[in-house]
Amino acid sequence: MKKVVIIGAGNVATHLYQSFKKAKQLDVIQVFNRNFEKLHFVKDEEQKVSVLEDLKEADLYIIAINDEAIEELAEKLYPKKGMIVHTSGSQAMQILSKFENHGVFYPLQTFSKNKQVDFSEIPVCLEANSEENLEFLKVIASAVSNRVFKVDSEQRKALHVSAVFVNNFSNHLFTLAADFCKKEDLPFDILRPLIKETVVKLESLDPYAAQTGPALRNDQKTISAHLEMLDGDRKKIYTILTESIQKFHGKKL
Amino acid sequence: MKKVVIIGAGNVATHLYQSFKKAKQLDVIQVFNRNFEKLHFVKDEEQKVSVLEDLKEADLYIIAINDEAIEELAEKLYPKKGMIVHTSGSQAMQILSKFENHGVFYPLQTFSKNKQVDFSEIPVCLEANSEENLEFLKVIASAVSNRVFKVDSEQRKALHVSAVFVNNFSNHLFTLAADFCKKEDLPFDILRPLIKETVVKLESLDPYAAQTGPALRNDQKTISAHLEMLDGDRKKIYTILTESIQKFHGKKL
Repeated sequence: MKKVVIIGAGNVATHLYQSFKKAKQLDVIQVFNRNFEKLHFVKDEEQKVSVLEDLKEADLYIIAINDEAIEELAEKLYPKKGMIVHTSGSQAMQILSKFENHGVFYPLQTFSKNKQVDFSEIPVCLEANSEENLEFLKVIASAVSNRVFKVDSEQRKALHVSAVFVNNFSNHLFTLAADFCKKEDLPFDILRPLIKETVVKLESLDPYAAQTGPALRNDQKTISAHLEMLDGDRKKIYTILTESIQKFHGKKL
Repeated sequence: MKKVVIIGAGNVATHLYQSFKKAKQLDVIQVFNRNFEKLHFVKDEEQKVSVLEDLKEADLYIIAINDEAIEELAEKLYPKKGMIVHTSGSQAMQILSKFENHGVFYPLQTFSKNKQVDFSEIPVCLEANSEENLEFLKVIASAVSNRVFKVDSEQRKALHVSAVFVNNFSNHLFTLAADFCKKEDLPFDILRPLIKETVVKLESLDPYAAQTGPALRNDQKTISAHLEMLDGDRKKIYTILTESIQKFHGKKL
């Protein structure tokens, strides 16, 4: 059994704790958070820690805290024999370079507090400062996920920005559409099946092939009618995305 | 049994034919298309028609052809006792006003040729030139779908533009992300679980509440790092969507 310490009490830390606890090969021995109260999700009282000096020896320390706070925490953390990793998509591996064995364990998913996720389906992107450490991380990651990838820092940055496009930005498009429907006394529910199918389609088609709509058809009449209904940011968003679809699919405006 | 004639042979016409055939209360008696060859999806040879004069009397004629072609077809169509509807999200009901009984039967979904859909889940948006005709359309729509809505022309326009946001535009964001990953030798598969969860989340949260990411957190360090990695349309899209998220959620840039 590999001994693991989790550092943090946010969404990522909570979900890591829950999935690690289920893995037979892993033994979560402690969970650290400066604010003790937030460790309510940890079942065993003795495993809760709020002072860094109380951390025990472990095979792996996973830092799952806000991106901006990782460097500061790393400074305060005493050197350990065990490996130290962070879980951030945007931070370089090097911010942990003071530790002999270090790396990144980046789960590419959106986590919400009260929403269960199946961790076995989550891609875990690994990086380490040696081949040996990478192999070690693979063993850990494979204990909780079926999708383990070796991803270097440049690739991880590309994934992080891609995640913003596919998750944050598409969710905002859904928000704008929901708001638009609300103004016309239409329930958001009426759009749900379309949103669902947009994603289900991608199981059999890649998104380039799945593209449809007035921009792709270069249907200027519909595009003009839509633009007349929009203003402000919504109009700007419609215009730039229509242009981008047309350029990307090789059609001229 | 209500006698139905379908006009068209594209994706919408094909899916309507398939679901109408299964409904006990409906009898598809003919399917019309100028190009006879494209009616290959119609099982009964005698039901295929390519000359408008050959159309029989029916209770309902559903025009499921390209938006731009509806008016021209309506001009050529002899007046009928039966009701005439189109299936377009963007066209006014009035383009069918020469017919005594007319309306709109707009299924709010994205249809692909070789992709089955469960029609019972598709919202069908109805409009008619009289209460009686609306009731008639409700009977038809309820025979194939569990989600039947009365939607006037203004509301239908709002839905159509909303559909572009939630389907066409989000799919384009997926395309841009897939392309970005490809450049970094990463498979699109690595993003699929995140895309799926983005939509699964909406079963329990509305999109406004589901918003996460650097724009919402006003995490300028991450936003700047992302912008440095992007150029052209991708940079413009990132900027406008980040601004829009911040304005919408009440945060200042």
